[in-house]
Amino acid sequence: MNIRLLCKLLGVLCILIGAFMLLSLIWSLPRFGYRTDATIDAIQFERQGFLGLLYSMFLSFALGGLLYGWGRKGKGELYRKEAMAVVGLSWILATILGATPFVLSGTARGPSIRVFESEQKVLVATSAWNFWKAWSFDDSLTDQEFQLVSSMEAAGSRGLSELELQAELDDAPKVIDQLATRMPWSDLIEKPGDSRGLVPADRVANYRLKRRKMDLMDAMFESQSGFSTTGATVISDLEDGFEVPHCILFWRASTHFLGGLGIIVLFVVILGQGSAGKALMRTEMPGPTADGSTSRMQHTAWLFGGIYLGLNLVLTLILLFMGMSLFDAICHAFATMATGGFSTYNASLGHFNSLSTVNGEAVEYVIIVFMVLAGTNFTLLFFTLIGQPMKLFRDSEFRTYLGIIGGVSGAIILFGMLASDPGFENFRDSFRNGLFQVVSVITTTGFGTNDFDQWNQFGRALMLVLMFVGGCAGSTGGGMKVIRHLLCVKILGMEVDRAFQPKVVRLLKVGGKPVEDKNLKTGILVYFGLIAFIFTFSFLLIVMLEPNSTWGVDHSHKLIDSISAAASTLNNIGPGLGEVGATRNYGNFTSLTKLLFTVLMMLGRLEIFPILVLFVPAFWRDQ
Amino acid sequence: MNIRLLCKLLGVLCILIGAFMLLSLIWSLPRFGYRTDATIDAIQFERQGFLGLLYSMFLSFALGGLLYGWGRKGKGELYRKEAMAVVGLSWILATILGATPFVLSGTARGPSIRVFESEQKVLVATSAWNFWKAWSFDDSLTDQEFQLVSSMEAAGSRGLSELELQAELDDAPKVIDQLATRMPWSDLIEKPGDSRGLVPADRVANYRLKRRKMDLMDAMFESQSGFSTTGATVISDLEDGFEVPHCILFWRASTHFLGGLGIIVLFVVILGQGSAGKALMRTEMPGPTADGSTSRMQHTAWLFGGIYLGLNLVLTLILLFMGMSLFDAICHAFATMATGGFSTYNASLGHFNSLSTVNGEAVEYVIIVFMVLAGTNFTLLFFTLIGQPMKLFRDSEFRTYLGIIGGVSGAIILFGMLASDPGFENFRDSFRNGLFQVVSVITTTGFGTNDFDQWNQFGRALMLVLMFVGGCAGSTGGGMKVIRHLLCVKILGMEVDRAFQPKVVRLLKVGGKPVEDKNLKTGILVYFGLIAFIFTFSFLLIVMLEPNSTWGVDHSHKLIDSISAAASTLNNIGPGLGEVGATRNYGNFTSLTKLLFTVLMMLGRLEIFPILVLFVPAFWRDQ
Repeated sequence: MNIRLLCKLLGVLCILIGAFMLLSLIWSLPRFGYRTDATIDAIQFERQGFLGLLYSMFLSFALGGLLYGWGRKGKGELYRKEAMAVVGLSWILATILGATPFVLSGTARGPSIRVFESEQKVLVATSAWNFWKAWSFDDSLTDQEFQLVSSMEAAGSRGLSELELQAELDDAPKVIDQLATRMPWSDLIEKPGDSRGLVPADRVANYRLKRRKMDLMDAMFESQSGFSTTGATVISDLEDGFEVPHCILFWRASTHFLGGLGIIVLFVVILGQGSAGKALMRTEMPGPTADGSTSRMQHTAWLFGGIYLGLNLVLTLILLFMGMSLFDAICHAFATMATGGFSTYNASLGHFNSLSTVNGEAVEYVIIVFMVLAGTNFTLLFFTLIGQPMKLFRDSEFRTYLGIIGGVSGAIILFGMLASDPGFENFRDSFRNGLFQVVSVITTTGFGTNDFDQWNQFGRALMLVLMFVGGCAGSTGGGMKVIRHLLCVKILGMEVDRAFQPKVVRLLKVGGKPVEDKNLKTGILVYFGLIAFIFTFSFLLIVMLEPNSTWGVDHSHKLIDSISAAASTLNNIGPGLGEVGATRNYGNFTSLTKLLFTVLMMLGRLEIFPILVLFVPAFWRDQ
Repeated sequence: MNIRLLCKLLGVLCILIGAFMLLSLIWSLPRFGYRTDATIDAIQFERQGFLGLLYSMFLSFALGGLLYGWGRKGKGELYRKEAMAVVGLSWILATILGATPFVLSGTARGPSIRVFESEQKVLVATSAWNFWKAWSFDDSLTDQEFQLVSSMEAAGSRGLSELELQAELDDAPKVIDQLATRMPWSDLIEKPGDSRGLVPADRVANYRLKRRKMDLMDAMFESQSGFSTTGATVISDLEDGFEVPHCILFWRASTHFLGGLGIIVLFVVILGQGSAGKALMRTEMPGPTADGSTSRMQHTAWLFGGIYLGLNLVLTLILLFMGMSLFDAICHAFATMATGGFSTYNASLGHFNSLSTVNGEAVEYVIIVFMVLAGTNFTLLFFTLIGQPMKLFRDSEFRTYLGIIGGVSGAIILFGMLASDPGFENFRDSFRNGLFQVVSVITTTGFGTNDFDQWNQFGRALMLVLMFVGGCAGSTGGGMKVIRHLLCVKILGMEVDRAFQPKVVRLLKVGGKPVEDKNLKTGILVYFGLIAFIFTFSFLLIVMLEPNSTWGVDHSHKLIDSISAAASTLNNIGPGLGEVGATRNYGNFTSLTKLLFTVLMMLGRLEIFPILVLFVPAFWRDQ
């Protein structure tokens, strides 16, 4: 294996990542990184976010310099094996570097405590490495104490002032002062004046429950979720400008952009390494693609990059024009075109429906269109751009893709209205909510404007199955890809025919043309087999590793939630059902399970092989 | 297609079925079909059961005679296509004939009503063809009425006497008399004296909730569940000797016996139709089997039949010796050796633990051994019988099979004891309960001695996944078969290797020997693909077709229950999770869903193809 060349390439990656951290820095300036909804803005310089990003940037540049310096004399070509190693290792490296800003800035994940009323029991959300039982304490609170702790939990990181507490209970401050002397509450409650330094004045004067900072595993999860364009998050309150700085949110969106562009596509564009480019494109470009010459691959890489950048730019401008701030417009454009799904608001894209300055419905339809585009084969988008749109509409994968969107949306709208689900009260809302959620899941974006976990059971089941479909090959969409399903159905149909006509030879055809590659048939079936095995075993692992207390008092939905969590991360969607539903997040899971999710996101995004081979000893043996 | 020959074969099948109905008749005699637990026995001649069986027998003989008569001149050979048609059609025909005794005897499925306390709402268990909403009525009962209806429901078909009612409430008879004048209660409540004819005296004098008779779809489900050796039932109270006659239970067990033997194996043995025998064996014998000459196939069929009969006989004798009545011994031997799972008791095999005359623990261990044997390749059993046991223990499939049983049981016992699940209080019970349930599910028998739905979440998840494993090829076990999993894992491993070493040629080996069949690789992968597609679509169909009211008040477990129901029927297990758990049954599902389950059981048992091709138009076209 050509280690030097490998290091050189990894070095370039580190430097690229550092450059994007540099770009994120500017959003820490006061009143620069402002949101559409200005009332929830921080007005001071985001010192912690800035420093966290700065240190991470230095780290990336230093590591990049070292790797590049050591490997700069690396020459020759990258063969298939090396190409796979580059893809797999660079993804892992990117995940680690991408995680550093979250940790170094001290970004808060969420409340350090969860209160479950039915037993008057308090469970502490833990991310420790203990996987048999989450750290929970069964502190019998008095009714008054319980009520006040719950209120503080609901108030978030801002906390409650003395007056607000007294409105609930006359001697509330006294009760809390007393509680704060008891273990472990002395570590969990911040009383007025406890906070020092940069904490905004309104908070210093309040009684607050401490926030839990993101640990390394939280940050790895978030980083991987960004690069893999999954969009699953561990952060509970994205709108808390002090605990979750704007510059960090911008970095978070940047990981989507970088992931979507495909770090390896950048490699090809920038380095154009002979047959390596070809091998890399093959490994990296999602879905089965046709062969092509090196120069054509390089050309394609430039082209794809150009289309991707162009669409990001166009969407940003449209969103700006529709009334979003620059910060929101760029972040949401990044998340849309990468089919990622990170938003800057707790209510995801649905937040804009609550603003008077933005036409929320129009934004949703714009995003629907761009999500569909992001899930379309970029080659076909190119042909459409140069005036050959019929290539797009004659493509069997694209037609199937539109067909599935139409069919599933129709079923969702029909069943949603029959069941009078929330958001399906009239046809106008039903149409928008149904279509948006279906497009969001099939393209593996994961934006939410309506919580599909609250739908009727058939709607929920349909969304769960839809997670496995995915976008088109050659797009930024994740999942298993429409073309694989199309081919698999054809292959299975042929095999059923062959069961009673063993001697009739049939050709596998797509769009009327026979598919020549002899290995394609096995390849498609093997991919389904691998997904099935990985999915099943990760489901078992989640159920085994994750303590029941993550589900709080009632853990009877653990199995279906775990199924949906495995499906959602493996297919790079984001939201799932129940505990990982659209209004919840992955923050309460233990570190071990977060590690599993991180691996699943990586496996799904890189279409299994580049990651799986890294664990095969024979892969590292020289031959 | 050789229609005449096909009819001839189907005619023979009908006559065979009729013969087994004749055998079941004798158990209707008073004090002949008696149970081990004699206190719950009927003491009168089972007139309705007898007549139902008699009519069904005549029907079978008549249809068989017609078909045979018309096709008796059919000659020539059965080719692959005809063989598949025979298998598929005979299975459907057997299901229909097997259903007639249940309908014609008026066997009761269960109570006609379900009472849900939390809303004081009464849902009527329906099996109508309305699939949007189960027939339910929201009759606001007074607290007193509600209490009395609930008591009558709990009392089962025997009902409550006036004295028993008065023990609950002084003027209970008056309240019920009044209720019985209101619609729909006038149709649901039987007051003393309402019953006529053959109803036992103790019931005539009681207030009772009417029983719901099995309709055609109930009976088809039960019959298919028997022939496919699934063991899922729609009957709530098996121990009600009057509503569910002994002779009908014996017929129910006989369907297991016939299914296990393989109706088509009987065909081969009796008819030995040239190449047809070979083609049939290939289609019918579960799992991928090696080629063989016609005479060898015929020989094998005899051999398998002999071993199967022998094991049934041995097990019956052992169970008799252990204290079971002849009736119970035969029924449970049939259910064990066919890996079926129908019991004659509501608590399944666990019933014998409550009897003082039988050593329940010993019975469980005996059944464990015979379930393992029933799930073992009969060819290997034959070699063991003729003194070559090493062939068995050197076989990779058998070793994997034992390995899975050991590994999964170990995990179940460990996690069960850690979680202090019911039945896992000490090691002795944990060992027995864990091992029994694991063997019962992997062999696809479905007997229960401990409700795995009450286990810890990891235990439940493990059992759900275990359902897809199945027994060994060439056994009576259903499911996907151990050999397929073994080969699939090897194929996937080879393909991962090939991803970075595309030019290295590898041979698929089992037990050190290379597998020569070129189509085997595709065949294995296609089978996994078909199972995945059928499973996914049937899950969606169940959720869509089945109304939420089947789950009563809380339908939040509908998705996971539907997943388990699809897995359990497709793999011919029987019990699943939640609403279809070991202590529940399939009776409350609507007819449309029962039809779906019936098709799933058939698809799973015949390994998909013989049923699927019947729906392909090209299959019926002459060529």
